[in-house]
Amino acid sequence: MPSPKLLVIGGVAAGASCAARARRLCENAEITIIERGPDVSFANCGLPYFIGGEISARDVLAVQTPASLKSLLNLDVQTRCEAIRIDRSNKRVEIRHLENGSTEWQSYDKLMLAPGASPLRPDLPGINDPRIFTLRNLEDMDHIVTATDTGMRAVVVGAGFIGLEMAEQLQRKGLSVQLVELQKQVMPPLDAPMTALLESELRRHNIAITLGDGIAHFEPCTDFVRCYLTSGKVLEADLVVLSIGVKPDSELARAAGLNLGPRGHIVVDEFQRTSDPDIYAAGDAVETTDRVMGDKTVVPMGGPANRQGRVAADHIFMPDKARPYPGSLGTAIVRAFDVAAGITGWSEKRLNAAKRPYEAVTVNDHQHATYYPGAKPLTLKILWEPESGRLLGAQASGFEGIDKRLDVLATAIIAGMTVEDLCHLELAYAPPFGAAKDAINLAGFAACNRRDALVNDTTVLPDDPTVQIVDVRPKPLSDAFPAPCKVINIPFPTLRANLDKLDRNRPVLTLCAFGKMSYFAARVLAQHGFTVSCFSGGLKANVDPRSPAKMPTP
Amino acid sequence: MPSPKLLVIGGVAAGASCAARARRLCENAEITIIERGPDVSFANCGLPYFIGGEISARDVLAVQTPASLKSLLNLDVQTRCEAIRIDRSNKRVEIRHLENGSTEWQSYDKLMLAPGASPLRPDLPGINDPRIFTLRNLEDMDHIVTATDTGMRAVVVGAGFIGLEMAEQLQRKGLSVQLVELQKQVMPPLDAPMTALLESELRRHNIAITLGDGIAHFEPCTDFVRCYLTSGKVLEADLVVLSIGVKPDSELARAAGLNLGPRGHIVVDEFQRTSDPDIYAAGDAVETTDRVMGDKTVVPMGGPANRQGRVAADHIFMPDKARPYPGSLGTAIVRAFDVAAGITGWSEKRLNAAKRPYEAVTVNDHQHATYYPGAKPLTLKILWEPESGRLLGAQASGFEGIDKRLDVLATAIIAGMTVEDLCHLELAYAPPFGAAKDAINLAGFAACNRRDALVNDTTVLPDDPTVQIVDVRPKPLSDAFPAPCKVINIPFPTLRANLDKLDRNRPVLTLCAFGKMSYFAARVLAQHGFTVSCFSGGLKANVDPRSPAKMPTP
Repeated sequence: MPSPKLLVIGGVAAGASCAARARRLCENAEITIIERGPDVSFANCGLPYFIGGEISARDVLAVQTPASLKSLLNLDVQTRCEAIRIDRSNKRVEIRHLENGSTEWQSYDKLMLAPGASPLRPDLPGINDPRIFTLRNLEDMDHIVTATDTGMRAVVVGAGFIGLEMAEQLQRKGLSVQLVELQKQVMPPLDAPMTALLESELRRHNIAITLGDGIAHFEPCTDFVRCYLTSGKVLEADLVVLSIGVKPDSELARAAGLNLGPRGHIVVDEFQRTSDPDIYAAGDAVETTDRVMGDKTVVPMGGPANRQGRVAADHIFMPDKARPYPGSLGTAIVRAFDVAAGITGWSEKRLNAAKRPYEAVTVNDHQHATYYPGAKPLTLKILWEPESGRLLGAQASGFEGIDKRLDVLATAIIAGMTVEDLCHLELAYAPPFGAAKDAINLAGFAACNRRDALVNDTTVLPDDPTVQIVDVRPKPLSDAFPAPCKVINIPFPTLRANLDKLDRNRPVLTLCAFGKMSYFAARVLAQHGFTVSCFSGGLKANVDPRSPAKMPTP
Repeated sequence: MPSPKLLVIGGVAAGASCAARARRLCENAEITIIERGPDVSFANCGLPYFIGGEISARDVLAVQTPASLKSLLNLDVQTRCEAIRIDRSNKRVEIRHLENGSTEWQSYDKLMLAPGASPLRPDLPGINDPRIFTLRNLEDMDHIVTATDTGMRAVVVGAGFIGLEMAEQLQRKGLSVQLVELQKQVMPPLDAPMTALLESELRRHNIAITLGDGIAHFEPCTDFVRCYLTSGKVLEADLVVLSIGVKPDSELARAAGLNLGPRGHIVVDEFQRTSDPDIYAAGDAVETTDRVMGDKTVVPMGGPANRQGRVAADHIFMPDKARPYPGSLGTAIVRAFDVAAGITGWSEKRLNAAKRPYEAVTVNDHQHATYYPGAKPLTLKILWEPESGRLLGAQASGFEGIDKRLDVLATAIIAGMTVEDLCHLELAYAPPFGAAKDAINLAGFAACNRRDALVNDTTVLPDDPTVQIVDVRPKPLSDAFPAPCKVINIPFPTLRANLDKLDRNRPVLTLCAFGKMSYFAARVLAQHGFTVSCFSGGLKANVDPRSPAKMPTP
């Protein structure tokens, strides 16, 4: 085989992975990486943690350098170079050297586009003030670090993954932090109830949160920037971090006539090939296939980018053995102080927006056996297809073991497992690690109980005044954390002896702290002839989530 | 429906789960639990942790009491009662009250046998000395606690799950601990190389370990017990804990003529029914189906017991909706001090013993991104079916995130996933939790690289003196932790420039610390025409596992 030439545009996740795999598959290929920025293959997910000081050495973020990629992989890495035009008919790319403005053409046999995505900077008055930052690379990070050396007041706009990490790290560095989010919850990819713990943890660390509000415009002042919100609220900031989303850097592809998706992402096939068979694309700038529904989707995250880059290299250098990229799921997690929360697959709001049928349950449990020291509460929500029982998505929130449950459920979703399959997952159990019945098993049990019509559960308190709401918590708990409605308190252990306190001709709703005792109570009442439903997931919002209550074994 | 009577023999994991589920399904059933011991539904997996003081309150281990089961579930719990005979034709069981020796018959409509399994006490001279303990219940635990109040020297016989937990906890309590194991490794369910870290962690905490040796007999002395090992070695102990396995308590079932398996376990169908359709059985005393191979097997653990009890209750009280128990996988984990190790599915030695074809790879990685503080090494081994690529088993060892990897791989095995599927599991990634390519993805990559003939890897160093062994580690590392063989040191970044140092007519083996650089080197050499193999998994045994070396991204 003559020396093939692979030209890679973009040297971070997808581009660097593609080039590294390409070298292992083809020692004699000429492999060049063109990178606009000064750094390649840096740890972009680590940037917020350096700003807050949790990562103290900047050089650990520069995972590889042009020199190390040369010595390890014999790659030719050209930084501060921008690809400005693709000449597809002559298979060459025009490159501009950003340091001196000179341009040159570089030829390719195969071209990989891994341009990534840019943080959104909406065209608002005042947006160009130098104290308004976005965070994409080490240079952006350095600018924010410099701003935090003197600034004391930060406004973070957007409470998604980067926004929450930035809010945490700026607070950690000692700044006062205001967080603004357009939606009425933090962490918009999750369903609102699953973000309650995250929000309370942020507030506990004195992060001021404004929800359901957005930036109208900025007013640059001498010593600070004034942020005008659409509600009329005004915040003052020494620095502003915008983390409201990204847009694909697909102009080069568009200008070259490659097919783009409806939101401007590069369209690729299952081997990451664009509409030009000699041009591949991967990472945040491409459209991919949703692994749950099979629709086209966009998942701008590090894991998919790395694996897509690798698939492309396989297809270029060993096409007979390459296996397709199976699509993305959108598994994601965020940590804010002591709390973690995350999602995999589809959320309830996304299913509703797409008008797809689903069912959902939420269960409360702990990360490990409650009798072993350090048990902390954990909340798990699963969503499934009503007919087949196939899992569509899951969310988890809590203090420990959140990543573990998400990973197991991501694997289950990819495998096409049903809620019934969750009942009998056999997970690793010793008291420091889990429980004989893990929260994931419990979620499966709860889903199957609904399917078997053992319980009629609801997540809304009834308006109907004829419904008898029975709070089955112990009286002291019921008194200390009253339910937001009129209740009859009948602690569960006394329920069978007190059936005569309830009117059999009126419906009953049972509720408790975590949704377990109210289920037990609903089973008792249903079998005694009552029309009963159960308040799913419990009133835990009214219980201090940091002081886990002991729950009986199911 | 008239009031059906369910009689449950054994009130711990399987029996208590069955009774609790039965009550939720049938409010008017008469449900009685007969328990030989003084306690029901206690946390048997927590017993070692109370002995060591990690769990400080005894009452948290008594998860439920007869009184709480009465008030919560309206169960009739009879402790210190032993079932001594089943009269199947009259559907009744003879019960002996252990406190006064009186007997009575109790009838049943359905009978659940959940007798559990007893710790083995081999019939050796001296075995009946009261200072020789086993650990099954709270009474056993109390006796060991009393013995540790005065005893200073403990011998633990058997280095399986309970043995390691006991060794750790007795050391924690301040005793000097000797651990004796018949096999030549600790934690016999795992393959030996995967137990190296566990063994070094135990030794680091001054636990003396004797491997490949067993007890010949005991000699009770006035102040201590002398333990004679088959090797001739003699250990002195103030207390001895035997943890060498269990045998099913299936005498009652045998006497009643129920079918038993080859090792005395009760044979059940997929709904936990014995050969008598009115008698069910669950837990440590039953045979079950291996979830990987479909063979009959025995998995005496808490998770399966709980879920089997539940399946039986479903089949008794809602037979039309009950779903079968799908079999057990044998997922298990143990923690010893800072180290955790575990297994799911089949090990290499078990596959070898059964003469089943398999392939295996071992990869070294960290629990999360290495640039985020606190990254610690982790080793993962996966085994798969050569033709199909289907996963057969997995093992993990390290400091953190071991339970997570085992749980994901247990789920993947249950789902019938292949090594190829592991490449594209989309796991939760943020720097504190994981990496863009998780260790599980890397294991999938490594397996597929072998399948695609990109690498010819081996786990044995060659005897053949013509093989050129190339150590590609940095020279200081190679000098400080020399390989156990003659090597040529060519640090990987200098390899391409030093190909002339190697003889192209002789085979090459590449090796490094973790198995990654040696793979890179093997790819370079293979493409330059060398016949090369790669030492899989690296020489990590020669690197201090507690000081993780930085590894480049793949």
